[in-house]
Amino acid sequence: MNKKPSWAVIRRLPRYFRHLRELEALGEKKISSGNLAARMGLTASQVRQDFNCFGGFGQQGYGYNVGDLKRSIAEILGIDKPRRAIIAGAGNLGRALIRNFSFPRYQVELVAAFDVDPCLIGQEISGVPVLALTELERYLLENAIDIGLLTLPREFVLPVAMRMVAGGVRGLWNFTSMDLHLDLPNIPVENVHFSESLMVLSYQLENNEGINREF
Amino acid sequence: MNKKPSWAVIRRLPRYFRHLRELEALGEKKISSGNLAARMGLTASQVRQDFNCFGGFGQQGYGYNVGDLKRSIAEILGIDKPRRAIIAGAGNLGRALIRNFSFPRYQVELVAAFDVDPCLIGQEISGVPVLALTELERYLLENAIDIGLLTLPREFVLPVAMRMVAGGVRGLWNFTSMDLHLDLPNIPVENVHFSESLMVLSYQLENNEGINREF
Repeated sequence: MNKKPSWAVIRRLPRYFRHLRELEALGEKKISSGNLAARMGLTASQVRQDFNCFGGFGQQGYGYNVGDLKRSIAEILGIDKPRRAIIAGAGNLGRALIRNFSFPRYQVELVAAFDVDPCLIGQEISGVPVLALTELERYLLENAIDIGLLTLPREFVLPVAMRMVAGGVRGLWNFTSMDLHLDLPNIPVENVHFSESLMVLSYQLENNEGINREF
Repeated sequence: MNKKPSWAVIRRLPRYFRHLRELEALGEKKISSGNLAARMGLTASQVRQDFNCFGGFGQQGYGYNVGDLKRSIAEILGIDKPRRAIIAGAGNLGRALIRNFSFPRYQVELVAAFDVDPCLIGQEISGVPVLALTELERYLLENAIDIGLLTLPREFVLPVAMRMVAGGVRGLWNFTSMDLHLDLPNIPVENVHFSESLMVLSYQLENNEGINREF
């Protein structure tokens, strides 16, 4: 690694991965930094600068090998490693994620859901068993879990997050409107803010012309 | 406006808004660019540079007035203007948004949902009527709609998006895994990519120390 990647570069990596996966699906073998940049609304120099944080990924003059580059970025992102996840909250949003999100694409196995609703406990949703939230501690004693998804009412987010972390969960993926900041140095938290994209959409409704979508 | 804001600045505006709303809720009246920057993982100079794109928002030496700054950013984002939205797809994700997302906070009124499921059509979800998807054209003839939410199976996204746009919907908010690019210059599309935050979380599980979360 040549240069410590900034947070902005890290947040761009998933977009590179997504575009490379699409290119691979289209049968593309090679892509130049210029073409990749154009696809993503970046400049070629920005792409090369980003990639230099990770050693550059091969010769610029000949373009990048799409498959190799995709695999290298997957490796940096750690999505080549199998991980296990649980989800707390099997309401509408929880069920939508359990049923529709492509966990296996990112090597994530969703092994259990937790809820307080007696009608749901004991059921399976797309093969994922729903357990009682009171069983969380016991379950985490017996199962090593990497990622905890939070899709429960906002008043339960903080206590359930703390119980997950106490039980050994290594990172949290929070879908609630409650912005979660644990300030535990080794426990990353990703808050999904639906509202941010609504506000960006709203901005674009106001300023419809000539936005250069570089990101 | 002093300088045309870049896409990166535009995407930071919702985060400024969110932090200012939190500060206001805490009763804070004034904030310096340094303190706002620290809260958001930016530098003071970055904050001032961002704000200079919109005229600067007042005297730096004395700090910003939290309420005024929040209102100015809301105005730039256009979330001070009432907008009307419809949602196509009243499955789990659609219902989760209808029931739990704070539309009124962003002056958005969700006026109707559309679905193909005869068990849902004719029902109301949190006061939002569910209509037959076949009624979309007629409904759009009679109602001016600003924003169309897409929460339906991926194979329906493109045709329904096109029907919405043909009916006068001005912008699309897409929650499906299908990346939507209409390439219509005046119709902004915001794709919500859950997978990106999972990948960033995964990166942080791999590289747990010393990430400077500036964004």
